[in-house]
Amino acid sequence: MSPGLLIGVGVGPGDPELVTVKAIRAIENADVVAHFAKAGNGSNARASAQRYLRPGVRELSLLYPVTTEYPTTDPAYRAAVERFFDDCALAIEAHLQAGRTVAVLSEGDPLFFGSYMHVHVRLMNRFTVEVIPGVTAMSGCWSAAGLPIAQGDDVLTVLPGTLEQSELVRRLRQNEPTVLMKIGRNLPKIRRALLETDRLDSAIYVERGTMHNERLLPLAKKLDDLAPYFAIVLVANRWWQ
Amino acid sequence: MSPGLLIGVGVGPGDPELVTVKAIRAIENADVVAHFAKAGNGSNARASAQRYLRPGVRELSLLYPVTTEYPTTDPAYRAAVERFFDDCALAIEAHLQAGRTVAVLSEGDPLFFGSYMHVHVRLMNRFTVEVIPGVTAMSGCWSAAGLPIAQGDDVLTVLPGTLEQSELVRRLRQNEPTVLMKIGRNLPKIRRALLETDRLDSAIYVERGTMHNERLLPLAKKLDDLAPYFAIVLVANRWWQ
Repeated sequence: MSPGLLIGVGVGPGDPELVTVKAIRAIENADVVAHFAKAGNGSNARASAQRYLRPGVRELSLLYPVTTEYPTTDPAYRAAVERFFDDCALAIEAHLQAGRTVAVLSEGDPLFFGSYMHVHVRLMNRFTVEVIPGVTAMSGCWSAAGLPIAQGDDVLTVLPGTLEQSELVRRLRQNEPTVLMKIGRNLPKIRRALLETDRLDSAIYVERGTMHNERLLPLAKKLDDLAPYFAIVLVANRWWQ
Repeated sequence: MSPGLLIGVGVGPGDPELVTVKAIRAIENADVVAHFAKAGNGSNARASAQRYLRPGVRELSLLYPVTTEYPTTDPAYRAAVERFFDDCALAIEAHLQAGRTVAVLSEGDPLFFGSYMHVHVRLMNRFTVEVIPGVTAMSGCWSAAGLPIAQGDDVLTVLPGTLEQSELVRRLRQNEPTVLMKIGRNLPKIRRALLETDRLDSAIYVERGTMHNERLLPLAKKLDDLAPYFAIVLVANRWWQ
C-alpha cells in the first residue's frame, strides 16, 4: 500500500458559491471527506461543501469535545483540546496508511485560525500534505458590507475578541483598520474597548457573513449583547456609506 | 435604459483554479470585463480569469499611469493617481449608464489593498454595486508554504513594506505573526528590520505564490535583494518544518 494524501481544503466563508474550483475538485476526488463540528451541531464547513460531495462518499466527522467544564485558561482545557487533535490525527492517519486521499474541510482558509492546522502539524512530516487556500470569513464580511478595509500604506490588524479589554484598547488606539474575531460572549468587552477608543461609530457587526441568513449592521445600532462566536466586527478608518 | 450593475470580482492569488464558482459566474455573465494593468504588462487579474472569459466579451483595460517621475510622497503623485481612478470610474460609468453589467477583476480580494476599491467608492452611491470576495495573495502564500499563520489568541498584523524601518522594527518587536506586503525595493530595509528584531530566521519569502512559476524559500537563504513588488514575506512565531 502506498501512503495516502492529506489535503486541507478551504471552503470559504459560508456561501457555497464562494468555494474555489480547486477545492471542489479536491472534494469530488477525495476518498474520505473529514470535517470538524460541535457535537449536536452540523459542520459549517460541510454545509458550504455539501453540494460538491460525491453521493455516498466516506465521511469522517471530528466532534469537538465538550470543554465547557474548564475555563479556557485552565491547563486541563488545553490538555483536552490537545488530546482531541491527537485523536483526530490518528483517525485520519488510519486512512492515509490505507493509501486514501483525505480532504479535511475547513471554514474560511485552513491555515488562518482553522482547526485543520492542528492535524496538519501532526501529520505533515510523515505524509504528503497539500493545502488549498480559501476565502476567509473576514473577506466575506467586508465584501458583504461593501467596506474597503485596507489600502495604500494601511496596517491591518486581526484581533481575537478573547484579549483583555486593556489590550484591545491599546491596539484600537493605533487607529488603524482592525478586524475583531471570536466575538460571542466577548461582545460587551469589545464594545467597551471601542467606546473607550472612540471607534464604536466606525464598527460594523456581521453575523454569518455571505450566508443566506447573514446579518449586518453598525455595531452602535445593535442593542443586545448576543452574538455567535463566529461573528466578526470590522473597524475601518473610513466608512464609505 | 436601466442603469447597470458594478461587480468587484476577486479572482484570487494567481492559480486560475483558485477562482470561486461565484466569480466565474460573474465573469461569464458580464457585459464588460474590466481589469487594471501597468502599460506594457499584462493584467495579472486577467491572467487568472482568462479561461473563464466569454469569447469576444467586451474588455476594458485600465492602465496605470506612469508615475515614476514623482516620489510617492510627492502630492503630485497622489494627484496623478486620483486623476487616474477618476478616469477609470468615468469609463466604467459610461457602461453602467448604458445598462451594462461591468465585472472589475481584482487580484486577490477586491477590498483588501485592491485597486478596485477606488472605483467602488466613486460609484457606489449612484449604482448598484456587488463585491465577490476572493482568496488573498497572503492566503495563497502561507498555504503554498504549508505554514499555519495564526491560531488561538494570536494577533495577526499585515504590514506594508513601505513603512519606515523604525516602524517595521516597532511592529516586529511584538513578536506576533506578521505578513509583509509590497516588498520590491523595500526588501533590504525589511531584511534589516527582521535582523534587528531577531526574526529573520522565521521569515519565509514567497514570489508569485500559487502561480506556475512560484518561488518560496527562507528569506535568510535568499542571497540577493531583487524582489517583485507583489512578493510577500511571512513571519510566523512557529515554523513547523
